[in-house]
This record gives sequence, structure tokens and C-alpha cells, in this order.
Amino acid sequence: MNNFTFYNPARIVFGKDTETQVGELTKAFGSKVLVHYGGQSAKASGLLDRVLKSLNDADMTVYELGGVKPNPRVSLVKEGIELCKKEKIDVILAVGGGSVIDSAKGIALGALMDEDVWDYYLYGKTVEKVLPLGVVLTIPAAGSESSTSSVLTDDESLIKRGLGSPLFIPKFAIINPKLHMTLPAFQTACGIVDMTAHLLERYFTQGEHNDLTDRLIEANIKAIINNAPIVMQEPKNYDARAEIAFCGTLAHNGLFSVGRVGDWASHSIEHELSAKYDIAHGAGLAMIIPWWMRHVYTEGVYKFVQFAQRVFDVQMDARYPEAIALEGIRRLEMFFQSLDLETDTTSLPIDEMVIDEMTDKIFVARTSDTLGFFKPLTKEDIKQIYRLANKQ
Amino acid sequence: MNNFTFYNPARIVFGKDTETQVGELTKAFGSKVLVHYGGQSAKASGLLDRVLKSLNDADMTVYELGGVKPNPRVSLVKEGIELCKKEKIDVILAVGGGSVIDSAKGIALGALMDEDVWDYYLYGKTVEKVLPLGVVLTIPAAGSESSTSSVLTDDESLIKRGLGSPLFIPKFAIINPKLHMTLPAFQTACGIVDMTAHLLERYFTQGEHNDLTDRLIEANIKAIINNAPIVMQEPKNYDARAEIAFCGTLAHNGLFSVGRVGDWASHSIEHELSAKYDIAHGAGLAMIIPWWMRHVYTEGVYKFVQFAQRVFDVQMDARYPEAIALEGIRRLEMFFQSLDLETDTTSLPIDEMVIDEMTDKIFVARTSDTLGFFKPLTKEDIKQIYRLANKQ
Repeated sequence: MNNFTFYNPARIVFGKDTETQVGELTKAFGSKVLVHYGGQSAKASGLLDRVLKSLNDADMTVYELGGVKPNPRVSLVKEGIELCKKEKIDVILAVGGGSVIDSAKGIALGALMDEDVWDYYLYGKTVEKVLPLGVVLTIPAAGSESSTSSVLTDDESLIKRGLGSPLFIPKFAIINPKLHMTLPAFQTACGIVDMTAHLLERYFTQGEHNDLTDRLIEANIKAIINNAPIVMQEPKNYDARAEIAFCGTLAHNGLFSVGRVGDWASHSIEHELSAKYDIAHGAGLAMIIPWWMRHVYTEGVYKFVQFAQRVFDVQMDARYPEAIALEGIRRLEMFFQSLDLETDTTSLPIDEMVIDEMTDKIFVARTSDTLGFFKPLTKEDIKQIYRLANKQ
Repeated sequence: MNNFTFYNPARIVFGKDTETQVGELTKAFGSKVLVHYGGQSAKASGLLDRVLKSLNDADMTVYELGGVKPNPRVSLVKEGIELCKKEKIDVILAVGGGSVIDSAKGIALGALMDEDVWDYYLYGKTVEKVLPLGVVLTIPAAGSESSTSSVLTDDESLIKRGLGSPLFIPKFAIINPKLHMTLPAFQTACGIVDMTAHLLERYFTQGEHNDLTDRLIEANIKAIINNAPIVMQEPKNYDARAEIAFCGTLAHNGLFSVGRVGDWASHSIEHELSAKYDIAHGAGLAMIIPWWMRHVYTEGVYKFVQFAQRVFDVQMDARYPEAIALEGIRRLEMFFQSLDLETDTTSLPIDEMVIDEMTDKIFVARTSDTLGFFKPLTKEDIKQIYRLANKQ
């Protein structure tokens, strides 16, 4: 087990009607708040009104910036930064899912400096200072409500990059699973894949002596697999929604990374896919992960056997460990398919030129010439994964 | 799943040689530190010298108070409180295991008020303010290094009581598994039972819809059961020590309690045993838990079947669920025995008079006339558990 420091001071306020506490929770960080959100759904559902009322009741001065889109763009972040500077905002409140929260993190960073915020994402610069950030979570998926990370897409180059900092951990996250009951099935499904991916990226490591965290990750994946069919079939099942919501938060709060190095290649490979075709991150992950697995599993067959056995109850067969490993991958793929998601990219207009272009973009401004850790991927490996996913 | 708030801002600094960071970590909370510790082992091992050197290198003014014993007493806590007030201490550093940390928490509470600290424990008063507390953990067991709780014993009445407050969560906890390699086998074993008990107390709840936390608890228990034989047979195995250490911290940091109500009756029943006979808490828990289980399992047979199946791989038999439940209890008992611990109280001079006395003490200053939640225990239930444990 590697040495580690774990520190996650996000206050998780979880359960029915918890959004009524937002005014009180936000006020602890100042009197001027920027409420950041996406499109129509927060307004149409009445959530935004309830949030604004709670903030007003707490005597806060409220500014609004909506319009965050999936794969959030740097341009809107810059708009938010200008607003924060002009109005001397004290605290940002993100009302939405991962895209809104990630966008809010970018604003929180840019508001306290004069440098170009995108440079921080592209070159992985160290974050020194951010505005405090609170969250009302409407989509359980990205885990950004208590994570150190933020992912933005540059409007011009369409390069998508993540930036991590302990300072990006929100001060509080309000998670009311009732708010998730009206999500479209596709968004629910994409969220389920995204949180599963966060667990898989941590699980498949070459590090050894991670027995506890391996088992915690397996437990979390099994809870997702158990509850996913319920939320898909009964969208208004509170308890299953609650399980999925907390699975998503824990999957990415850093606890399951302690003492180990994650892989994260699938995330980078997917980021270029969703930047290029503007598809949902979770949908893209379902297309990429099975093929990443089939490309790399020979680097650690027994880890994949453990996955098949412990998560999907596939029994070990000493004569054919590779077959058991592949069966685990097939079961995961079937799980994604059970959510009505595609598990290859054949519906996208991908050819060798696109594959070259996406592969090159992954390495723009990267210092390493390989990607990931379970198997450090060369450009040729990545192209091969894109080809496999496209059944070429 | 019940509504909940989870907030644990303890900074866990984990791994080899991490105690060299203690000066720097402590200094963030002031310049005058009270170092609180137990007996000879911290001195003899050289740990205390290394800690003091690190504090001195950080230009801190250091005061010392040693002498904490297992089942820490209120009298020493009061001595610490006087010292803190006299010297205007800024921060307390506990160097030790659960007893030292719990004692330090009592001091941290008393140092900022004039009321009798024991009243807070006896009557469960609300903690309003404490001195900041840091920890260097030498025994993985109680989980006090990142928990909300502290347990003290009154010198005169020998009543033992726990007190909980979010303010009791230490600011940081340094956990170097190498420091645990020289623990006597008995102390290692008691620690393993204590952390297992923290998981069991949370697991056996009548609450429903706790799929994720059930699975996380099972994962943690399985990791303990896997690594316990290794640390018992190879005390210097770093990786197994590291697993056990982090298992102990997670078992009691509050994460596995979210959305559910724990039982905690076994803890109270054991507290009177260790207060009466001054035995180690973990040793007492190994004597009590199997009998608490056998007394209550009919209140939730299928939860015990789940435990047997998921933790010990005992297969369900639809015809005899009670037999499967009992087999799970027997496997747990065998696990405790494999650590060379007694799983009944027949070695102690217990008779009906002692049973009456211990049972009465449990209810001193308690507002409820039952104990626990899985099965709310009456006085007669508790006596029956003491009798079962004593094979009467």
C-alpha cells in the first residue's frame, strides 16, 4: 500500500427535502452568491425557485448564471469569472449535475486570479486559491459534488481536459434523491455508467496490497448493479435512487483511491469522443470501457478474474483464467447494455482519420508519451482501442 | 435510507515514517502543545523522542502528560484540563491508541469550560467547544483517531460512558503501520475485535434500504478476516498491518453509519465488564458479542443469514435459515478464537450479584429503559446475555 493523505471536508447533506437547507448552508461563506445552473429542467421542476427562495430567506444577494451545457465550455466559465469579479461574489452555488459543478469549479478558480483559466486545465497547473463552492445535486453521475476534479472543454480546439485540486472539493453538497426521479432514463443510465467507471478506473491498478479498497470498490459496484435495474424500471423508487446517488458520490470522493494509483486511460479516450461528437460522457464510457478492458486484460489476468468472481459471481476455472477474465468483461458489457446504452462506437461516423485526430488530441500538452497505468498505452494502443470499439 | 449529514474533516496521513510530519501538522493549530500519552512503550520505542523532536523543530512549546491507562480515568483527564488552563495550551497531541485519544478528547472538552467534564459523559450533554486535537496512532483498534466518540471511566463509581460529538473528530491522524509491528499479540488481537465490533454494531440494524453501507461493512469485515491471520503470524508484515490499520479507521469514521441506526448494546454491555474487571475492551467484546448475537438473532434471521453468506460464504439453505444464521455466528466466534481470545466470561468471577450490579450500572443516568436497537434489550435481556456468556 502506498503512503497517502486522505482529506475530504465536503459536508454531505443527504435525503428528502434537504434543499430547504441551502440558504443556511450557503450563508456561512458570505452574503453574495452566484447561482450557476444548466438549462430548463431546474427552472421547470421548480427546484431553482425553491433554492432562490431559501437563499433570499437567508438574506443573501443572489446573482444567476445559467446555460451550462453537457461537456461544459470554457467560454461560459469566463463569463462567470467576469461576473464574480465585477460583483465581488463570495460563494458559488452549483445547482445541477457534473457539468454545472465542473463549470462552477472553473469559475471558482478564475474568480481569484488574472491568469487564463484554461491554461490551468491544459497544462495541469497547481490551483492555489478558489472561491468556496456549494452544490445542489440534480444528477448522480460525475461525483463532482465531493471530488477534487473538474473537466472542461475548450470552445475552439474542442480539447477536453480534467484538472484536479483538493481545493476543488465543494464545502457542502445537498443530495436529495427525490430530485433524481424525473431524470430521463438515458441520463440516469449515463450517470450509472459514469460512477461505475470511476470505480473501475481505481480498481484496475498494478499496485499491490490494496485488499480493503479493492473490496470496497467491489461492494460499491455490486450496489450499483443491484439498484440500477430498479431505478430504470421504477424511476420513482426513492430507496433505489438513494442507493445510486450515494454510490455516485462515494465512487469519486477519493476514499477508494487511497494507497493506490488509478488508471484513467478510458476517461481520456472517452473525453475526445464526447468532445468530438458532443455525446454524453457516460454513453461514451459504455462504448470505450469494454474495449479498453479487452485490450489490456492480459497485463493482469488474475485481477480481471477477481473482478469476474467477486462482482459477477463467475467461478474461477484454473484451466482457463483468461476465459474467466473475458467473461467478467462480457458481464459488465451486458450490464451497460441492460441500461439501453451502446457498447461500441459503430453508430458514430468514425474512420482512421478521426481516430488519428482524437489520439493526437489526447497528447496535446501532455508531458508523458503514454496514457494510463494498468497498461501504459502508446498512441498505437489507443488507436487499436478506438478501432476495436468501432469493430474495425 | 434515513436522511443524514456526513462530515468528517479529519486529515488522515497514512504510511511509513509519516510521524516526521507531526510538527508541521500540529503547528497549524497554535504554538503551545500538550503531548498526551500512556506508559513506557511510546518512550521505549523511541517514538515519543521522534515526536518531540519534530515538535521542537517546528518551534513549538511542548508540555507533556503521560500515564493514560486502558479504560482511561476521569482523574487524569482533570489533571490535563488544569494543565491546559494554567499553561494556555493551544492544541493537544495524543500519541497512543484509543485510550490516550479518548482521554485527550476529554481534556480538549474540559479545557475550554468550567463545568465538570464527567457530567458531559454521564448525562450525554452537548459539546459546544473543544481544543483542536491531533493524533499519532500506535494501536489500530478504537477508531478514535477519526471518530466522534470518547469513552471514559469514572474513578470512584467505575461507571464507563461514551460521549459523541462531531467536534471530537481530530484535526489530523498520523497512522504509520510500522509503529504497530511491535504490539504484543494480545493487543493486536483485541484491536482486531474492537474494529470488527464497530462494524457489527452498525451492520445489525432494523433499518431497511441500506444496500451500499451493508456491502461496504461486509467488505471491511472480510478485509479484517483476511489480514488478521497474517498480522498474528507475521507481526512485521507491513502490508497486512496497513490493511488492518486502515480497516480500523474506516470502521469508526462514521461513513458506514450513514442513513441507518446502529445497535451499540454489545458495547454498553462490555463497558461494564471492562470497568468491573479492568480487562481490555476488545477482549471483553469477544466474550460478549457471540452471546448478544445468539440472544437477538431471531429478531432478524435473514440479516444474520446475509451476514453468514456474504462474510463467511456459508450457503443459504431455504429449509433451515436459523441454522445458517447460527453458523454465521459460530464462524465469527471461531474467528475471535483464532486470535487466541476467550469467547465467554467463564474465566471471570461472575455470579448473579455481579450480573445485577453490571446491569444496573448500564442504566445509571440513562433516559431509556431499554438498550440497543436491533432488539431493544430490557434489564432481563441483558442479564440473560451475561448469563449466556458465563455459560450459566
